[in-house]
Amino acid sequence: MAHINLPPDLPGIRGPMAFRPETAQPLNDLVDVLLRGPSTLTPGERELIATYVSSQNECEYCQTIHGAVAAHHLNSEVLVVNVKQDFQTASISAKLKTLLVIAGKVAQGGKHVTAADVSRAREAGATDLEIHDTVLIAAVFCMCNRYVDGLATWAPDDPAFYRQRAALVAEHGYAASTLTPSMPSAPNR
Amino acid sequence: MAHINLPPDLPGIRGPMAFRPETAQPLNDLVDVLLRGPSTLTPGERELIATYVSSQNECEYCQTIHGAVAAHHLNSEVLVVNVKQDFQTASISAKLKTLLVIAGKVAQGGKHVTAADVSRAREAGATDLEIHDTVLIAAVFCMCNRYVDGLATWAPDDPAFYRQRAALVAEHGYAASTLTPSMPSAPNR
Repeated sequence: MAHINLPPDLPGIRGPMAFRPETAQPLNDLVDVLLRGPSTLTPGERELIATYVSSQNECEYCQTIHGAVAAHHLNSEVLVVNVKQDFQTASISAKLKTLLVIAGKVAQGGKHVTAADVSRAREAGATDLEIHDTVLIAAVFCMCNRYVDGLATWAPDDPAFYRQRAALVAEHGYAASTLTPSMPSAPNR
Repeated sequence: MAHINLPPDLPGIRGPMAFRPETAQPLNDLVDVLLRGPSTLTPGERELIATYVSSQNECEYCQTIHGAVAAHHLNSEVLVVNVKQDFQTASISAKLKTLLVIAGKVAQGGKHVTAADVSRAREAGATDLEIHDTVLIAAVFCMCNRYVDGLATWAPDDPAFYRQRAALVAEHGYAASTLTPSMPSAPNR
């Protein structure tokens, strides 16, 4: 049970977002710009960064929903599993691997990121903007993971829920999907 | 030196915010709602939560600027030092002490917050909204601290810089103060 009185039918971050729409709006705006706005990193790559950080922070809801969105964009659930388990051997670009190293360091704490980590990303072709966005995506998910777990929200068990929700988010974005009362009711939520 | 090419005259989070205004806007909106919007926690109390979390994360820039804003609102720099050193013996309300316990747990990771922590806050008079906002403020500063340190931004040494900046932020808010080119230039920045 959640630590505070949240709408019981909304899992993960969606409960506190419905509870506090004044903060949900800028949170969704931020995530939409970072994960879906114009970028030289694809939406799938950015969702992989979000998924990896959430898995490092052991946030069940965030790693599963963003993993499902990544899989939707990249058309592969196996790739998402591989990135979470050992991204160095996964079928992703060398550049993305260097960015995931930085993201993992950010999850441990900002000071863990070294000049050598950043140099390796740059040598693999990463731009300043891509490095910036990687650090901020990682930082944002350190926030979201703590928001979701710090309030003890619940996460659905059924993978079908996440696939269905991911398709919606991939098409409409986070802000729009949160406003749309389109989630199926239990037991398929 | 910062890990990426940021405007050299802007310290802390202000460098990356100037570098990436598309994400700065929702970040500032979020912090303005949480720290300055309508709430039964005073702006000073909320800035103390932000300061405490930033000190637990050892983020020099964030703990100093938000400590200065807290001191401005509460009219005491000593109180801010006391809260950072040992909030249990500081001159703050019993309720705020229970909220700082929760904030400190969020900094370690969301799952560290227990039902007993939340019960103690409720017994001390905290509402669900205050508990929610405490968790989100703590989570937001876990993000900001990682953003600031993950890009290796610089922090001014001069306490006068922070006092001056704090007065500006306390009056105009974060979004407005970031837009205003009102920061004194070196060496007083």
